[in-house]
Amino acid sequence: MGMDQATSVQTAYRGIAWVEGAFVPAEEAKVSVFDYGFSRSDVTYDVVHVWDGRFFRLEHHLDRFMASMAALRMSPGLDREGLRQVLLECVARSGLRDSFVAMLCTRGRPPQGSRDLRLCRNKLIVYAVPFVWVVPPERQASGISAIISSIPRIGAESVDPTVKNYHWLDLDRSLFEAYDRGADTAILLAPDGSVAEGPGFNVFIVRDGRVITPDAGALEGITRRTVLDICAERGIPTEVRPVSREELLDADEILTCTTAGGVMPVVRIEDRILGNGAPGPVSMALREFYWARHADPAETTPVPYPEDGTDPEAPELRAAGRAFIPSPR
Amino acid sequence: MGMDQATSVQTAYRGIAWVEGAFVPAEEAKVSVFDYGFSRSDVTYDVVHVWDGRFFRLEHHLDRFMASMAALRMSPGLDREGLRQVLLECVARSGLRDSFVAMLCTRGRPPQGSRDLRLCRNKLIVYAVPFVWVVPPERQASGISAIISSIPRIGAESVDPTVKNYHWLDLDRSLFEAYDRGADTAILLAPDGSVAEGPGFNVFIVRDGRVITPDAGALEGITRRTVLDICAERGIPTEVRPVSREELLDADEILTCTTAGGVMPVVRIEDRILGNGAPGPVSMALREFYWARHADPAETTPVPYPEDGTDPEAPELRAAGRAFIPSPR
Ligand SMILES: Cc1ncc(COP(=O)(O)O)c(C=O)c1O
Ligand SMILES: Cc1ncc(COP(=O)(O)O)c(C=O)c1O
Repeated sequence: MGMDQATSVQTAYRGIAWVEGAFVPAEEAKVSVFDYGFSRSDVTYDVVHVWDGRFFRLEHHLDRFMASMAALRMSPGLDREGLRQVLLECVARSGLRDSFVAMLCTRGRPPQGSRDLRLCRNKLIVYAVPFVWVVPPERQASGISAIISSIPRIGAESVDPTVKNYHWLDLDRSLFEAYDRGADTAILLAPDGSVAEGPGFNVFIVRDGRVITPDAGALEGITRRTVLDICAERGIPTEVRPVSREELLDADEILTCTTAGGVMPVVRIEDRILGNGAPGPVSMALREFYWARHADPAETTPVPYPEDGTDPEAPELRAAGRAFIPSPR
Repeated sequence: MGMDQATSVQTAYRGIAWVEGAFVPAEEAKVSVFDYGFSRSDVTYDVVHVWDGRFFRLEHHLDRFMASMAALRMSPGLDREGLRQVLLECVARSGLRDSFVAMLCTRGRPPQGSRDLRLCRNKLIVYAVPFVWVVPPERQASGISAIISSIPRIGAESVDPTVKNYHWLDLDRSLFEAYDRGADTAILLAPDGSVAEGPGFNVFIVRDGRVITPDAGALEGITRRTVLDICAERGIPTEVRPVSREELLDADEILTCTTAGGVMPVVRIEDRILGNGAPGPVSMALREFYWARHADPAETTPVPYPEDGTDPEAPELRAAGRAFIPSPR
């Protein structure tokens, strides 16, 4: 395994993981190639973020993760309260003040020779790594470009998109298509031709002051939910319904949203420049309200860091992003 | 990691793997949870088998695997000849005379914080474990039962089924459906309603002496190819074309086929018993011809075992299956 170590030194990932019931460096978080979570992508997961030392909407993510495990008939041998404790402790041990925190449940593996799914022991993994941006904050402030992928999102009848999953070959192929065409990312349509989602985000359009997002064919994102909640509170009208390709191309504004990056305005779709190439007013306001919520005790859960346990590299890393995040910190 | 060891002792997998350029016990073959091969199932693979000390149709599998990697824009830093050597040595070191041999290429992972697929270093993994039966040989000789799944196979436009992949949530859900309905396995239809494939196998029907398999919507299985080759040699008429649900339900015989089990006759589809509940004559003949080919030097590649390196447990394991395999050994 000499080469393994050489490689890991070059690219070692910072962070802490919880695997097989113990906390280990993130670099040691691995799954067996025989775990059906890998060899059949029979796994579900969730990602929640910690911002400025607080989990954001943790209970929403736990709700969704518990529902996903139930949908796949998995029971990992740890209840919701136990899982919450592991999540809190994992981030506390990492010392990270801004963190991308994942919880995963894999099918596990059957006894060698068997292929019976019922004989698999489901496995829970948790990890906390430095916050990951789907789009870097400086690019968000100026807006991103997207293509409409020629590849349809995997059909909801085959793989339920509301059960968060790693079936991403369609999404990754779309990203290569975006790279080839000089765009930042891609938006995929469902097999029926309506707008679905993108590689790691939900999609909204703004039309005549109304904020609109697809009702099906996509993950029910927690950030999407937050955007809808903000609109409800602020009296901004919303619609949750099928969105056509034509409406997407013709929108006043487009925004993408995800835990790993918040609200990210789009300024170019295919060859069309939106607004004057700058993020629109509704998108920018929603982005501001989104980050402002991160100071709200009702929406956040503090991480119980040890007295002197804060990651020494954290302040630097945060400084890079902070300049572009509109909320008061 | 105390719990890890306890668990692995209980269920340790036998076999040898090649990971990060070194041979290790199969139990140590793991992927990072940050490898997109896991966290996006952005991975392709192939499975070839060794029977009685010889690889079967190795070059066919290498052809397919090289094509799959190219389709996903992967280049693992080892050419075909290098890969062939690793495969031969892996099995030789395992001492296994009957082996399930997998080769995998994962996307790898980007530098921490990036999500750029172009910055990932693709990773090759090989392993050889004892031969795995999708259906145990004694069950094959008496024939298996299948349902037609209510879940459509992932659409070919979204994920190309000819690029062998781990997007199996539809297949695993179908298996649960089969368990619930008291059947051995499931056959999935494509989104257009025509017959696609099952969890790890291709499907043939026999009708009026003709051997028929779908032309699209499924992996182009090497065992399927072998069945078609056998038919061509023996003057059995074949058709490669869409097969409807009705034709499947109405077939004289149905057979499933895969590297991990060969030719496996079906004797019940939904509530219909085929033949008199015993495998049909065409299926049984094809099964016999299939195994007979394993002695053909033109189709097989001998494993260069070391003089005294044969796995001491191998003969026992083989004996269990041999009674049910029709070919002269
Ligand atoms: C496919 C997909 N859609 C949407 C989202 C956004 O969901 P959330 O806001 O809960 O992060 C994600 C997040 O990773 C995703 O992977
Ligand atoms: C989905 C699927 N279809 C078909 C097959 C049969 O292919 P082969 O005969 O090459 O093993 C497999 C083999 O694993 C498979 O996974």
